[in-house]
Amino acid sequence: MKLVPHVSLVTVIEVVAIMVGAFSGFVEARRKRMDIVGVIIVAFIAAFGGGTLRDILLDKRPLFWVEHQEYTILLFVLALTVAPFMKHLRHIVSERLIVWADALGLGLFAVAGVSQAQAAGMPMFIAAMMGVITGIFGGVLRDIVCNEVPMVFRDGKPYAICAFVGCWMYILLQQVDVPEDFRLWLSAATISMLRLLTWKFDLRIGRPS
Amino acid sequence: MKLVPHVSLVTVIEVVAIMVGAFSGFVEARRKRMDIVGVIIVAFIAAFGGGTLRDILLDKRPLFWVEHQEYTILLFVLALTVAPFMKHLRHIVSERLIVWADALGLGLFAVAGVSQAQAAGMPMFIAAMMGVITGIFGGVLRDIVCNEVPMVFRDGKPYAICAFVGCWMYILLQQVDVPEDFRLWLSAATISMLRLLTWKFDLRIGRPS
Amino acid sequence: MKLVPHVSLVTVIEVVAIMVGAFSGFVEARRKRMDIVGVIIVAFIAAFGGGTLRDILLDKRPLFWVEHQEYTILLFVLALTVAPFMKHLRHIVSERLIVWADALGLGLFAVAGVSQAQAAGMPMFIAAMMGVITGIFGGVLRDIVCNEVPMVFRDGKPYAICAFVGCWMYILLQQVDVPEDFRLWLSAATISMLRLLTWKFDLRIGRPS
Repeated sequence: MKLVPHVSLVTVIEVVAIMVGAFSGFVEARRKRMDIVGVIIVAFIAAFGGGTLRDILLDKRPLFWVEHQEYTILLFVLALTVAPFMKHLRHIVSERLIVWADALGLGLFAVAGVSQAQAAGMPMFIAAMMGVITGIFGGVLRDIVCNEVPMVFRDGKPYAICAFVGCWMYILLQQVDVPEDFRLWLSAATISMLRLLTWKFDLRIGRPS
Repeated sequence: MKLVPHVSLVTVIEVVAIMVGAFSGFVEARRKRMDIVGVIIVAFIAAFGGGTLRDILLDKRPLFWVEHQEYTILLFVLALTVAPFMKHLRHIVSERLIVWADALGLGLFAVAGVSQAQAAGMPMFIAAMMGVITGIFGGVLRDIVCNEVPMVFRDGKPYAICAFVGCWMYILLQQVDVPEDFRLWLSAATISMLRLLTWKFDLRIGRPS
Repeated sequence: MKLVPHVSLVTVIEVVAIMVGAFSGFVEARRKRMDIVGVIIVAFIAAFGGGTLRDILLDKRPLFWVEHQEYTILLFVLALTVAPFMKHLRHIVSERLIVWADALGLGLFAVAGVSQAQAAGMPMFIAAMMGVITGIFGGVLRDIVCNEVPMVFRDGKPYAICAFVGCWMYILLQQVDVPEDFRLWLSAATISMLRLLTWKFDLRIGRPS
């Protein structure tokens, strides 16, 4: 997940993205009346599931949450600390804040996914798919464990499509020799912006007739 | 999944098998009222899930849908093209056609699974299991994502048993030095035939009392 | 899963642990009215799922049920033999026996998990997590396939916590140079004891408010 080494901004965004994922797991697990063990594990699955699936498909080890053990421990400590205050937390954290953090996370995770897939020698279309998988499968696995049809497959929001477009942008910018760093940031920002725009205007995609 | 190189018949059957798997995902996802993103991803899972699980268990990379990127792209383009006409498609495609294509696919996938497991040095019983997993887990993963108890575990049809028998046939024919090509085709044909026979006579297996 | 080579006691406990896992799969699959294929596959998933997930996350091959093919075959033969008598089996096997065997299995599986994670060079916190995953994910995967919210996430029993405590004990005993064999047995026994104590006194953990 290390996009640009030594740039603390990335670390901040990564941690925020992971926390947002974990928070979504928290909320869903609580809604299912899980106990504290279930809530913590579902938070882990939501935060790390997408990147883990990508690493397994690419056969990449150590897994990113093993390489960044500090993220794993941070999430664990935070989960234990926050659990007793969950009820209040939802009132403190506004929906707007969550959507913004989630959009940032989607952009960052998807671009990290496509970038690592290319580094692993994947062809273009597969790399774009890996970006989308990294971006959305944390939520998919969270919903499967919570015994729900995955939200991202049925809510009609173009979440995966934003990620897909940004991943192709990253790939195409490479073809015209745009420097790596700039590509990363531009593509991630594009995904986040698309996500926020589709949210603001409540754009929906169709269901097959 | 390349059984016999340069034989276009195999490619045709493979593509048909993948399309049938994808179609089953399409139908199930639509029944769950998923949006277009969900429908396409479930189609991918149904088509490629069994082979992907086998490749992960065998630690084989690149995954077969990465090695055959053309299958992945074909499925994607077809899904986008077909999605608007899904409602009509079910009327055009007869059930008989689907069962036939599905039986061909089961035979081919299962035999490809047992063959690759043996190539990876798996012992006999494990190889036969890998054949069955390749043949049925696309459908199992499809049903899990769609939040259903997997059909193949509860409909009482001896789907997995046909695959298991054919996989053992493939293994035993090797012990008596039957040439590879002939074994592949004979075992795959046997599985497909068994599947069609059990379908025609509506044979059922029991539930544990 | 080979904890201490040539010690038949371990093999006995391992087989018992696997059988208990398989039995839980049997019971759950029957409750869901699955056919014999479903019952056998769910039994496999319940028995081998946790160890398989650990091996995949650690990128360890051959998988433990491939390395110990005899366990796989034993389970298969037993499943076929036992299936017709399932209804009676539940009356013969007392709940007390199942809880004891399950507690033994939890201890052994968790300690095997943390031990193999350390052998694979995992840092401490990750190793402890791998122990817990090995101990509980057989049941988690069983419940997902059976279309249920995983029991271990919602029944309020401190199952995973017992495993977590024992895994840390194993790790900490290493820091003070306690010999490997003694650590293994002591930690596994501690987990089993904790599990039995929490069962006897019906201790519960809370749900996040």
